Amino acid sequence: MGIFQFCPEHNINNNSSAARAGRFTTSHGEVLTPTFMPVGTQGSVKGVTPAQLKEIAPQIILGNTYHLSLRPGDELIKSLGGLHNFMAWDGPILTDSGGFQIFSLASMRKITDDGVFFQSHIDGSKCFLSPERSMEIQRNLGSDIVMALDECPAGRSERLKLEKSVSRTTEWLKRCRTFSLGEHQGLFAINQGGTHLDLRLRHLEDILEIDAKCPFQGFAIGGLSVGEPKEEMNAVLSELVKELPDDRPRYLMGVGTPEDILFGIEQGVDMFDCVLPTREARHGRLLTSIGRINIKNARHRFSDTPIDPNCSCYTCRIFSRAYLHHLFKAGELLGLTLNTIHNLSYTVELTRAARKALQDKSLPDFALATRRLWQTEGL
Amino acid sequence: MGIFQFCPEHNINNNSSAARAGRFTTSHGEVLTPTFMPVGTQGSVKGVTPAQLKEIAPQIILGNTYHLSLRPGDELIKSLGGLHNFMAWDGPILTDSGGFQIFSLASMRKITDDGVFFQSHIDGSKCFLSPERSMEIQRNLGSDIVMALDECPAGRSERLKLEKSVSRTTEWLKRCRTFSLGEHQGLFAINQGGTHLDLRLRHLEDILEIDAKCPFQGFAIGGLSVGEPKEEMNAVLSELVKELPDDRPRYLMGVGTPEDILFGIEQGVDMFDCVLPTREARHGRLLTSIGRINIKNARHRFSDTPIDPNCSCYTCRIFSRAYLHHLFKAGELLGLTLNTIHNLSYTVELTRAARKALQDKSLPDFALATRRLWQTEGL
Repeated sequence: MGIFQFCPEHNINNNSSAARAGRFTTSHGEVLTPTFMPVGTQGSVKGVTPAQLKEIAPQIILGNTYHLSLRPGDELIKSLGGLHNFMAWDGPILTDSGGFQIFSLASMRKITDDGVFFQSHIDGSKCFLSPERSMEIQRNLGSDIVMALDECPAGRSERLKLEKSVSRTTEWLKRCRTFSLGEHQGLFAINQGGTHLDLRLRHLEDILEIDAKCPFQGFAIGGLSVGEPKEEMNAVLSELVKELPDDRPRYLMGVGTPEDILFGIEQGVDMFDCVLPTREARHGRLLTSIGRINIKNARHRFSDTPIDPNCSCYTCRIFSRAYLHHLFKAGELLGLTLNTIHNLSYTVELTRAARKALQDKSLPDFALATRRLWQTEGL
Repeated sequence: MGIFQFCPEHNINNNSSAARAGRFTTSHGEVLTPTFMPVGTQGSVKGVTPAQLKEIAPQIILGNTYHLSLRPGDELIKSLGGLHNFMAWDGPILTDSGGFQIFSLASMRKITDDGVFFQSHIDGSKCFLSPERSMEIQRNLGSDIVMALDECPAGRSERLKLEKSVSRTTEWLKRCRTFSLGEHQGLFAINQGGTHLDLRLRHLEDILEIDAKCPFQGFAIGGLSVGEPKEEMNAVLSELVKELPDDRPRYLMGVGTPEDILFGIEQGVDMFDCVLPTREARHGRLLTSIGRINIKNARHRFSDTPIDPNCSCYTCRIFSRAYLHHLFKAGELLGLTLNTIHNLSYTVELTRAARKALQDKSLPDFALATRRLWQTEGL
């Protein structure tokens, strides 16, 4: 397909780190990595306009296949020129496969080798998602990066269940790979296997066998950060990333906190997505370079300082904590928007700063300084 | 005080219309009239950032004394540099007196000649508002235009009650007039009297007697559009406006619909405010040059056209009805913001276009064409 030219720019290449900066090209623009993708579940990054999003300046955003196919429908979006046109975002978009949402949101699931029968969480209607249908939806949406359909078992599933699930995901991956996507769409494969490194590596072998015949444009790690202990996640992530092809982007799905993103970057992950920054913002929980603050807290009531003295986002440039505290207490919509602008800006900036540190060959120092600042007391 | 130099620029001056364009200056900028003031009840025009509001470009906005004094408190806002600084709006601001909200929102009211005892609608705490306290709050907020405290009886009150209320409002006005406001603040008097023209004119005489000793910077008409029949409101408005001094701005409080604003302009009103555009927007009811639409309606589901083909606001430039329909159905915050941007832009633009028509001496044609377009069928 050739639309993805992933170019690893800078590897630290010492024993302690596999971290790297890179870039790849889509028909909607270049993506500089490492990068964080804000989540636009229903065709909108909650609470912000495309103009505000442009100022936050993520390299790429994410749309949800499950939600968009149920409402307003992928055919409707196609008829209106595709997801970019529909939501007025002209930068790159990645769509997920819908698998994760079916396994976490829908009810009455019945999984067969063919696909998944489920009830819509919106109106209870009976629906079906197969590898082919997931590809068709994503082709209709016209996203730049399409994710293969995977089975997503619950975190802490039994090994036997995970093994079966990995096998099915491999079979589904073959069907996704043979589906004819749009000319400018790239397909990412997803690795599963819970926290069992051997299972993950075996799955990766199967993926690379398919890849050898018809290459994927990237590789994703699914099924982590779903309830397992942090140490187990970190251990398997660290080992697994080493085995992923280094000539294509690596995407750690659904991660995460600033701490997890920084750890992922150190292991050599290129792409991240998570609802955490936007969801936390709507609850008044704000991420800052000097640790987390809760804007509801009474000590912000009279504070004339910005959320984060080291942040240059619209919210931090213009508004005091006292004002944001007031908006939150008064239930004003604007508070949700301003908090979201900040949390997204903070997270996007974290990956941008890490990229710069990688280019300067100073990631270890950057990571140390960042972690130390997060421990600041008395915000 | 001299900060208000109201300059009536263009009067049509024929028997059928007293409409006029004008301008006056505040320390936060010039206000071109006729003009519509978006309402920022709690220190925020609901759902829009100051940057978005700047693009909508109202000449002046409104803040609510009652709400802001209860939360976050006028002393707090003063300590943070005043309302302009607190909410990051550097254009002119008018604050109301708090009277209307006490009579419509608070409970356990007890009215005395001294002032009003009431319970906060937020936490039930006991509060007191007097003419002096209203002036003090508005001085702390630092608004450009301060409204005198009036008693606001319910629409359709008995005449005897209205008479008593008007007398009290006159006494309170004297106390407001003697209160020492900020150097750059102007004070507007409010005329009451329900739909009884003779009562209104008698009240106006009393107001002008006070004005003769120490002039007000403008005159407001309160207590209309509070449930009385439209014909009665229009009749009293039409006659009353003729008697207001023509060298200072005339403000019709709490009005209103596009139809009512246009009628008011034709009678010679200069300023309007209303929550209607913002509140309706949040319910998906959109004002357009070709009549009202409800974005929830299924016929907008596939529509690739903007809300209003004649509108150049951010929402209409960028988004389809289909997208806004989807956002509303999906409960997305962004829908509230985009709808609000449109309804405010539409209302502000209506007054701007009327001003231009007045300058071109073509208001009657403009009004005729506007009313005809509102009747367009098959949106």
